[in-house]
Amino acid sequence: MNYEQILKEIYQESKSLPTFGNVSTSIPELAKIDGNKFGIHLTTINHQDFGIGDSGEKFSIQSVSKALTVALAFSFLDEKVWERVGVEPSGSAFNSLVQLEYEKGIPRNPFINAGALVIADMLVSNLENPKEDFLKFIRKISGCQAINYNLKVAKSEKETGFRNAALANFLKSFGNINNNVETVLDFYFHQCSLEMTCKELAHSFFFFANEGKSISGEQILTKSQVKRLNALMQTCGFYDESGEFTYKVGLPGKSGIGGGIAALFPKNFVVATWSPRLNEKGNSELGMNALELLTTKTGMSIF
Amino acid sequence: MNYEQILKEIYQESKSLPTFGNVSTSIPELAKIDGNKFGIHLTTINHQDFGIGDSGEKFSIQSVSKALTVALAFSFLDEKVWERVGVEPSGSAFNSLVQLEYEKGIPRNPFINAGALVIADMLVSNLENPKEDFLKFIRKISGCQAINYNLKVAKSEKETGFRNAALANFLKSFGNINNNVETVLDFYFHQCSLEMTCKELAHSFFFFANEGKSISGEQILTKSQVKRLNALMQTCGFYDESGEFTYKVGLPGKSGIGGGIAALFPKNFVVATWSPRLNEKGNSELGMNALELLTTKTGMSIF
Amino acid sequence: MNYEQILKEIYQESKSLPTFGNVSTSIPELAKIDGNKFGIHLTTINHQDFGIGDSGEKFSIQSVSKALTVALAFSFLDEKVWERVGVEPSGSAFNSLVQLEYEKGIPRNPFINAGALVIADMLVSNLENPKEDFLKFIRKISGCQAINYNLKVAKSEKETGFRNAALANFLKSFGNINNNVETVLDFYFHQCSLEMTCKELAHSFFFFANEGKSISGEQILTKSQVKRLNALMQTCGFYDESGEFTYKVGLPGKSGIGGGIAALFPKNFVVATWSPRLNEKGNSELGMNALELLTTKTGMSIF
Amino acid sequence: MNYEQILKEIYQESKSLPTFGNVSTSIPELAKIDGNKFGIHLTTINHQDFGIGDSGEKFSIQSVSKALTVALAFSFLDEKVWERVGVEPSGSAFNSLVQLEYEKGIPRNPFINAGALVIADMLVSNLENPKEDFLKFIRKISGCQAINYNLKVAKSEKETGFRNAALANFLKSFGNINNNVETVLDFYFHQCSLEMTCKELAHSFFFFANEGKSISGEQILTKSQVKRLNALMQTCGFYDESGEFTYKVGLPGKSGIGGGIAALFPKNFVVATWSPRLNEKGNSELGMNALELLTTKTGMSIF
Repeated sequence: MNYEQILKEIYQESKSLPTFGNVSTSIPELAKIDGNKFGIHLTTINHQDFGIGDSGEKFSIQSVSKALTVALAFSFLDEKVWERVGVEPSGSAFNSLVQLEYEKGIPRNPFINAGALVIADMLVSNLENPKEDFLKFIRKISGCQAINYNLKVAKSEKETGFRNAALANFLKSFGNINNNVETVLDFYFHQCSLEMTCKELAHSFFFFANEGKSISGEQILTKSQVKRLNALMQTCGFYDESGEFTYKVGLPGKSGIGGGIAALFPKNFVVATWSPRLNEKGNSELGMNALELLTTKTGMSIF
Repeated sequence: MNYEQILKEIYQESKSLPTFGNVSTSIPELAKIDGNKFGIHLTTINHQDFGIGDSGEKFSIQSVSKALTVALAFSFLDEKVWERVGVEPSGSAFNSLVQLEYEKGIPRNPFINAGALVIADMLVSNLENPKEDFLKFIRKISGCQAINYNLKVAKSEKETGFRNAALANFLKSFGNINNNVETVLDFYFHQCSLEMTCKELAHSFFFFANEGKSISGEQILTKSQVKRLNALMQTCGFYDESGEFTYKVGLPGKSGIGGGIAALFPKNFVVATWSPRLNEKGNSELGMNALELLTTKTGMSIF
Repeated sequence: MNYEQILKEIYQESKSLPTFGNVSTSIPELAKIDGNKFGIHLTTINHQDFGIGDSGEKFSIQSVSKALTVALAFSFLDEKVWERVGVEPSGSAFNSLVQLEYEKGIPRNPFINAGALVIADMLVSNLENPKEDFLKFIRKISGCQAINYNLKVAKSEKETGFRNAALANFLKSFGNINNNVETVLDFYFHQCSLEMTCKELAHSFFFFANEGKSISGEQILTKSQVKRLNALMQTCGFYDESGEFTYKVGLPGKSGIGGGIAALFPKNFVVATWSPRLNEKGNSELGMNALELLTTKTGMSIF
Repeated sequence: MNYEQILKEIYQESKSLPTFGNVSTSIPELAKIDGNKFGIHLTTINHQDFGIGDSGEKFSIQSVSKALTVALAFSFLDEKVWERVGVEPSGSAFNSLVQLEYEKGIPRNPFINAGALVIADMLVSNLENPKEDFLKFIRKISGCQAINYNLKVAKSEKETGFRNAALANFLKSFGNINNNVETVLDFYFHQCSLEMTCKELAHSFFFFANEGKSISGEQILTKSQVKRLNALMQTCGFYDESGEFTYKVGLPGKSGIGGGIAALFPKNFVVATWSPRLNEKGNSELGMNALELLTTKTGMSIF
């Protein structure tokens, strides 16, 4: 497979599309991003790297981090994770409180905000220095020491994150947050503020495609565990558009409102895209389109 | 009408009923209350007072205070109040977030918690020293200087009020709270912690029955304004049991989880009951029963 | 009280308002009505009649009939009616299925469509010739033999009444319809097709204001029973605008999408209005406005 | 891969589990089935057949048929199918009306009842003799002339199918059913009454695993089309347990309340299981368990 050529085609075809969608304005710091940024990076299971466009520029990975926090929690707690959060698609917006009320404080899955807050609470309980230790974990799995939180973004999110504060307090009222609400929110806003390039993001997700082994060869999760998390990304990774993404792209993945997407073909490749313009469901328009082109052009699909 | 005799009959018939319902445990400080307390106080429009049982004992008026905060806000803002909160029954539990999400942060009415938080926000904006000034207002309308907040209850409520914190943050995320969330919650927890005897409560509500004039003769609201707030209490005063209360009792009123109820027959009387055992909708079992007996025995009803 | 003068003022003030709202198009036959029709009729407890405008013209009473079917069912079954339908405001649109699903097939109240279908089922079970017998009942309480179903409207409603068919089947699936779904729907579409003038409608509702006695002096329901149904109309008579109507008008009443409203001041008067333009909640704009003017001008209110 | 040995192990391990779950009672005719029936049939892409237990006995495939009707509609209408039905998981029970109301009559996906009714309506519009032609299609793709409707089951379902009648009328009220409601329901009840053995079911699903080509080599759908329907089965095939099934089994599939499941590993095998005891989400307990064992024992998974 000539990935270099394929990425070039995807990049050019995508760039020529009329621009649509808008940069997220929910976090003031993120609203400043140039909506025309666009990058793709693909890493094969044999460690070959292919990047194009703005793939070397740092961006806020936001909710893409939810796949990494759940991986870390899973490595500690294994199936116990699912006592406090489900594995079902929500059929609702990512920040909805409705279902949470009907289902008594057990979030549908770890990729909606409520679920990610419960996972954050687990990490706060299980890590000695939660923010520092989580950053170490990210640097370890990606093999990249240059990854950091963006403290301005974390602060900006904290100042405007009333919906997340509502969710965290709501979860706490159901007894599904054990730590202090402020501590959990602080951790959550930091994890979302992580900045990576497309390449770093692809490398961070490498172990999902590589039966649990990171790009530097370390076993992060068991083969069975990554299989399960991949399945979960497939059904729930794109909020209330997970079905659409599965239908069109057919790869497990996770998106974020910073415009990033990480996706993977088990035992084949990891790919990360970045384009900040979002569709109305909160997913990157150009990123989703690029990944659809990727599966079409390579003919590779798990289905 | 021989109210003394009627109250005696109601008291005795009610006391002989099998006990049912439980004291609310949602606020630890309130959970300590003796469930067998029971008092009634009725004040006629001609200033005659009739009390029986524990009617002279202080209790936590909790949500009954919502009728008093909305009255104060109404006196400042008149119809502008309804730009931020509705006048419709909710058809849901008093602390539900569901409807609030569907209706974009405009609470259904000022008597569900979300609505009362918006009213609290209005008072915080309009009063110089919100907690002190509201207390002064209560003392003025009731003609009773001995009314106070119970700071222990306010503190207890704050420590466990995650659902209310969720509601306040949720409202803030929709832009329907202008002040700091903590400030609004602090005011709200204080207003709920107000302690009164049945007599003091009846006197506080006197102006609702007296075309806007308080027991000491001061015009608190206009005739038209109290008519409107009475109508609102009729449709929304008992959470998701407002229809049942209207059906059985047929008087405007407001209940609280401390077990208190204040109700009134316009131009005739005000009545306050207290019994801490609540039914599953969160209203005082014995209090509702006593008020049903009252309208049956007096034959007085607005319908 | 000079009702003749007051009605004249209301009529003129209302007529001079800019027209707004639209005639309901949900039933093709009703969509043909002239939107500018406007009539009011008021009957005092002393049998004085005051009419103005198109008050002598027949119109389709539609959901106003729900107050009359529940009265008839109540006369047979008394409190047993409430084993299959509630007395709470719904907080939802009149034809919503959502709440019905959450509450397992027990409609919130007899004035939303689901509740009216359950009442229709009760009548089908309790009347020998349901449609004929119900018509006789209407003629009896109104003292008017000229009242009839409009078979064209009933047929039109049947042909397009898929939402009602959905509700009836849904209720049946929960076991809350005992008869054949088609039979119940047929009865329901007929009751809604009843045609009356404002005067006939006011006379039909006379017993609600007259402690249960009809205009010809017959006891239709007990004093206590009409008190209860009046309370129910107060909290639930105007769909999801019942709170607004109570807030502004403060009288028990029932509206229909034909543009009719019947309302009453217990022991004082009954009033019927007709104006086919509806607001977005499905209630007659001009009718609601006229009734608000009526309580303002007379200063009469139950609150 | 020694499938014969693996099926034997799965069969024995499963049989030794304590029985749990109950046979569906929603359709009287189906309630009569012996709950202890259990069969598995696996067909490899190379046409090798492996069966065990009651795999040669006919059972009612019920909702498994929804994958086959959507395939047929897709073959006619291609992407136009999605103008009237979505591709997202519902996050709700299979027969819920709630989401349908909020989403204005566009069912979430073709595998919940509402969606399947819309697909049925498409087939009624596109087939000359809908029931006969659909049966022909099933016989063609399975290569088995012995497949038939069970008219008793279809009749039984019609007599008790009030929830489905509610859904169909509800869809019609939104304009998303073009044909007569009774005709669509009749087709739907017939498609659900289809009877197959595990072997016949596996053969019917063969084309999903075989890039669109049926077991007799006929191209039923394009390679891209089956990829898309497989993706859809992955996210939505097991009602509100699709996430759980994907998490545990990781294969696209479709279940039915008759206790049948069809699943597949693209380009590898098709497998059908039958065990009538259902869990609380309406999926076959033993069937799901057997398929989880199958992916564990073979180590084969798409993730």
